[in-house]
Amino acid sequence: MVSASPSLKLPHVSATANPVLEAQLRHALDHKTKPLGALGRLEPLALQLGLIQQSTAITLTQPQMVVFAADHGLADEGVSAYPQAVTLQMVMNMVRGGAAVNVLARQHGFGLTVVDAGVASPLPDDVVTGGDQANLLLRKIGFGTRNMARGPAMTGTQTLAALHAGMDVVTHLAGNVVAFGEMGIGNTSSAALLLSRLCAVQLDDAVGRGTGLNDAQLDHKLRILFEVARRHRAAQTPLAALAAMGGFEIAMMTGAMLQAASERRVILVDGFIAGAAALVARGLRPAATDYMVFTHRSAEVGHRLMLIHLQAQPLLDLEMRLGEGTGALMAWPLVQSSALLLNEMASFDTAGVSQATPANDPEPDDLTTMV
Amino acid sequence: MVSASPSLKLPHVSATANPVLEAQLRHALDHKTKPLGALGRLEPLALQLGLIQQSTAITLTQPQMVVFAADHGLADEGVSAYPQAVTLQMVMNMVRGGAAVNVLARQHGFGLTVVDAGVASPLPDDVVTGGDQANLLLRKIGFGTRNMARGPAMTGTQTLAALHAGMDVVTHLAGNVVAFGEMGIGNTSSAALLLSRLCAVQLDDAVGRGTGLNDAQLDHKLRILFEVARRHRAAQTPLAALAAMGGFEIAMMTGAMLQAASERRVILVDGFIAGAAALVARGLRPAATDYMVFTHRSAEVGHRLMLIHLQAQPLLDLEMRLGEGTGALMAWPLVQSSALLLNEMASFDTAGVSQATPANDPEPDDLTTMV
Repeated sequence: MVSASPSLKLPHVSATANPVLEAQLRHALDHKTKPLGALGRLEPLALQLGLIQQSTAITLTQPQMVVFAADHGLADEGVSAYPQAVTLQMVMNMVRGGAAVNVLARQHGFGLTVVDAGVASPLPDDVVTGGDQANLLLRKIGFGTRNMARGPAMTGTQTLAALHAGMDVVTHLAGNVVAFGEMGIGNTSSAALLLSRLCAVQLDDAVGRGTGLNDAQLDHKLRILFEVARRHRAAQTPLAALAAMGGFEIAMMTGAMLQAASERRVILVDGFIAGAAALVARGLRPAATDYMVFTHRSAEVGHRLMLIHLQAQPLLDLEMRLGEGTGALMAWPLVQSSALLLNEMASFDTAGVSQATPANDPEPDDLTTMV
Repeated sequence: MVSASPSLKLPHVSATANPVLEAQLRHALDHKTKPLGALGRLEPLALQLGLIQQSTAITLTQPQMVVFAADHGLADEGVSAYPQAVTLQMVMNMVRGGAAVNVLARQHGFGLTVVDAGVASPLPDDVVTGGDQANLLLRKIGFGTRNMARGPAMTGTQTLAALHAGMDVVTHLAGNVVAFGEMGIGNTSSAALLLSRLCAVQLDDAVGRGTGLNDAQLDHKLRILFEVARRHRAAQTPLAALAAMGGFEIAMMTGAMLQAASERRVILVDGFIAGAAALVARGLRPAATDYMVFTHRSAEVGHRLMLIHLQAQPLLDLEMRLGEGTGALMAWPLVQSSALLLNEMASFDTAGVSQATPANDPEPDDLTTMV
């Protein structure tokens, strides 16, 4: 069990609230050449970005995608449709540039870093040294977590090491935007358990088909996870739950999110697994969510409830359930758009465009002439 | 009233159905290194693009945004929150690069063409000749439509001229992707009337707040539109309804959509007004919708029903109601992503990644070793 031991060094995260700046941003948005509020969800997003950067002009630079990969001892219980070897295979696929996250990172000009947070096997020697499509970081905490059906997934030391490694990874990243993704066969189980524990959600509502379980396999997964939750019923704090039922990639992503928030980076949160890391991060530093843009709602069944508990309305809902950070990358152009619209659109004044007719005067008689 | 007169020359539009190609595309998507179906809505989108281009490799080139602008005589009845002069003012704003559509077209590398389909005033002389941010085309059918509360919005001749002009505009566009937007104070009224007439939707369910009417103004708009619909109750065909209750920009966009479909271009359909043009286009050439990507659900209340009648599930739902084609541009990166993922992702075979464990064998024992 992990408590807030003296060896855990979490960064300070400031809330972004700033009423004066917020009023300035709202004024700027309300005077752009468009009907009031007509940019919909892009407007509160622009507001959030401005508050993160403490500025009325948003600059988004050198966006980075970091994929944390690790294995889960729980995979031994048959909770995934895919064999555990796929975690390593997909890491190799990413290093070679063939995974979905590579395609999307190239499309959107993201730097891509793949972190071995704890894949069950060593990576082949010839890969460790190179890789032209993704920067590979070796921060392996262990060869997969222990089987949480038999004991805690991680020791306290491992949990802290993973959190600190995630923080360290972020300190070396360029730019001011970071997206986090993951790869780990079995990790929807950890995410479901963390959602259930940290948000008091019924486990039945949190557990889904992951990469594609059929009905019988889903029943089996649910039975296993009920046992796991019962075994670790004493793990009630975010850190304790993370250690008992999390994973190396989730712990590392949690540390990375906290560090990114402490550096006032924009954080693009992907789907169900990244959301679980966001829940833990919020538990440790509540202000961290101020920096998080929730990018999409995944098809994994528990994600809807998770987003509600995060008080997050995601930008996309495309029935995706791929992980790797793909949802975060797909939403990125919308984040850019909201910044560009705030920065570049003309105002009514500068463009010489008439504003709406006052509501009590439906017959327009005050037409502004062209400038 | 307009019937299919001999002077109307509509292009031929071929359905894209091709079972052999569709099977090839599905096979390619199903063997990418991801769980089956995990790209969600991006997968049917890739399928649609492949069928449009009749190829398993999609190439999207030189995307174009065309904004059709025109005025509506019905604006005299006080159906909009904005004065009619705003149509011209916003055209000028677009020519100068300050509108939302400019920002997004720059972001996404779209060529931008603004078409004066029938703005109520002449454009200033010094603007007609130049404009560095948008290509301006003068295809003015008239100085705004007639007030449809007193007679048909357009004559038959005007309707055909607008359709033909829209077709002509598209024939001169580069690339194989075209997005259509609009600007026209009062045009949510036309779109609501066309939705109601062509889809047998109750007018109450089709009429919304447009650019921002309050409750009293909305009641007024609804009363006016009921009168308009009653006056033009004989206009039942798509062409007749378009002439009686449409607008120059909607008619021109309809022609443009038909031409784009006939040239097998990908058509990005924006919101409520573009959707009304899509309804008319479908009425004239049912296969045209095969080429249409429905990009977003707008906050305009009738759009939800319109999309249902178009059997369309839009990519984005961001509570936007700005028009100009902004929703289409925001969805563009998703269209690109679906093409890139089909073209560039590795397959299980080439990447040496194991596929899902057979459903009747939850304990993996057939791990594929790394290639």
